Amino acid sequence: MKFQTILLVIEVGGTLAFAMSGLLEAIRKRMDIVGVFSIAFVSAFGGGTVRDVLLDRQPLFWVQHQEYVWLVVALALTAPLWLKTFRHRLTENAMEFADACGLGLFAISGASIATAAGMPPLVAVLMGVITAVFGGVTRDVLCNQIPKVYHDHRPYTLCAVVGCVVLLGAEAMGLSTELSMVAGICTATGSRLLAVIFAWKLPAWPAQQREG
Amino acid sequence: MKFQTILLVIEVGGTLAFAMSGLLEAIRKRMDIVGVFSIAFVSAFGGGTVRDVLLDRQPLFWVQHQEYVWLVVALALTAPLWLKTFRHRLTENAMEFADACGLGLFAISGASIATAAGMPPLVAVLMGVITAVFGGVTRDVLCNQIPKVYHDHRPYTLCAVVGCVVLLGAEAMGLSTELSMVAGICTATGSRLLAVIFAWKLPAWPAQQREG
Amino acid sequence: MKFQTILLVIEVGGTLAFAMSGLLEAIRKRMDIVGVFSIAFVSAFGGGTVRDVLLDRQPLFWVQHQEYVWLVVALALTAPLWLKTFRHRLTENAMEFADACGLGLFAISGASIATAAGMPPLVAVLMGVITAVFGGVTRDVLCNQIPKVYHDHRPYTLCAVVGCVVLLGAEAMGLSTELSMVAGICTATGSRLLAVIFAWKLPAWPAQQREG
Repeated sequence: MKFQTILLVIEVGGTLAFAMSGLLEAIRKRMDIVGVFSIAFVSAFGGGTVRDVLLDRQPLFWVQHQEYVWLVVALALTAPLWLKTFRHRLTENAMEFADACGLGLFAISGASIATAAGMPPLVAVLMGVITAVFGGVTRDVLCNQIPKVYHDHRPYTLCAVVGCVVLLGAEAMGLSTELSMVAGICTATGSRLLAVIFAWKLPAWPAQQREG
Repeated sequence: MKFQTILLVIEVGGTLAFAMSGLLEAIRKRMDIVGVFSIAFVSAFGGGTVRDVLLDRQPLFWVQHQEYVWLVVALALTAPLWLKTFRHRLTENAMEFADACGLGLFAISGASIATAAGMPPLVAVLMGVITAVFGGVTRDVLCNQIPKVYHDHRPYTLCAVVGCVVLLGAEAMGLSTELSMVAGICTATGSRLLAVIFAWKLPAWPAQQREG
Repeated sequence: MKFQTILLVIEVGGTLAFAMSGLLEAIRKRMDIVGVFSIAFVSAFGGGTVRDVLLDRQPLFWVQHQEYVWLVVALALTAPLWLKTFRHRLTENAMEFADACGLGLFAISGASIATAAGMPPLVAVLMGVITAVFGGVTRDVLCNQIPKVYHDHRPYTLCAVVGCVVLLGAEAMGLSTELSMVAGICTATGSRLLAVIFAWKLPAWPAQQREG
């Protein structure tokens, strides 16, 4: 029971963080209210929707958990209030933290759902990554820019991959599902936080100097 | 029987209007013939396809109604002829009118199909919006621009939302499905036409002045 | 048995060629390692995935054939080595050849799968085209450019259409499935190679001179 509650809190935090990132990006692009709402929705629900479609899961997770949709609606409606109040460095750190939590939980939930559906490890890792990353990719495509996760040279997708591998490894070693999930989430979220704090860079693509 | 015929006429009009909008956009972007065809297809069938995939409806609506595909093919093949003849203000008004009809019908058909599939009201409204809007969004993404519905500050998605709410409200009040659908379509299409005629603007996002 | 082997070789070649095209494009856009991997994946598997989702086929083809995923991983990991060695005209020709093979095979496999699923000819052709083209379209969208197949004025999609029509025509004339597929693949791949060698151009859109 308590474990479920913790998961719920993190999942809600992740959804809100992802919705928030879409909202801020849409505002930056000077979209109208409908655009801001739409991008917030897509950022929050894009990854999980693609995962559910690829795994043929019905109903979709946001159909099953409508409260998430209402949550994003409430977030968008109240955004002007607290955007005015909290626009300083503290908030950006809080955003990065929530986003890292979302990354970890979305990746592990995606991989777990795929494993539960009988998918092999490789596919489970891919589904974890898709769940964690696709919302942000779609957000950037709709905002007409190259997806940030593909060219900001900061580890993000990699953290999701490592977390999913830890999850599957722990399960293969006989750990309980709960413990494996916690280990996976901590690895993904933790490595992302370390990457942000210490400004880790992905190695440049070897051929990159010779192109362009 | 007669009601079905009216619906069919409007649906065909909407499909053609959406295909047309894609065709014109692709021509503006100087695409080749294949690009013009492809964008016309995507604009006409994108929204309904995503709706069907999300609701897991098989076969897809354009597989069931192949005549729609042929219609768009015919439209694209004959486009050069009547583009030459009719390029004046009258046509633009006709386009806006057909597009508004398409908006209303696609939104209401999406919401009705979702309700029939047992979806709750919130999801039904979202499906209505997706059906009405997603074709145009994909068109703009493929043409490498920010979707117009997100940043032209004119009510479009909102008209779809209002129409879907009227549909569900009328049904909840005990009106027949046919009457509720007509009410929803008239609301969505009518409000869109009013918005175009009187040049209504969406309110700007409150925080927008302080960003960018 | 032997026929299956030939198909496998071509399919692997096509997957690698498509992955390669994504890889090169991502490098050109100065993406990081994760971006290069992601675009390579999307280019190789995008078309088939959309086909499988639209036809409601489960499991997806790359879930069934995990070796394809590993192949693309291996390709991306070793890419720096042979990109350094082979960057000259010969390789570009080899790329065009492999890409043409991929085009033919992906188109025919898409159309065959659709026919086997009981789809009518028009839908089968559309599925063939989607399978062959969608990976490249998604690659270009993620790289924030108008899809090349829509505006480079060189026949590509058309070759896929012609190949699918030949496949269906041959089957309708009573040829065996194997023979029909070979005829379709040869037509699509062959016409694409001819188009590249002789630099065929698609006719410009008739209204194009008067727009823009």
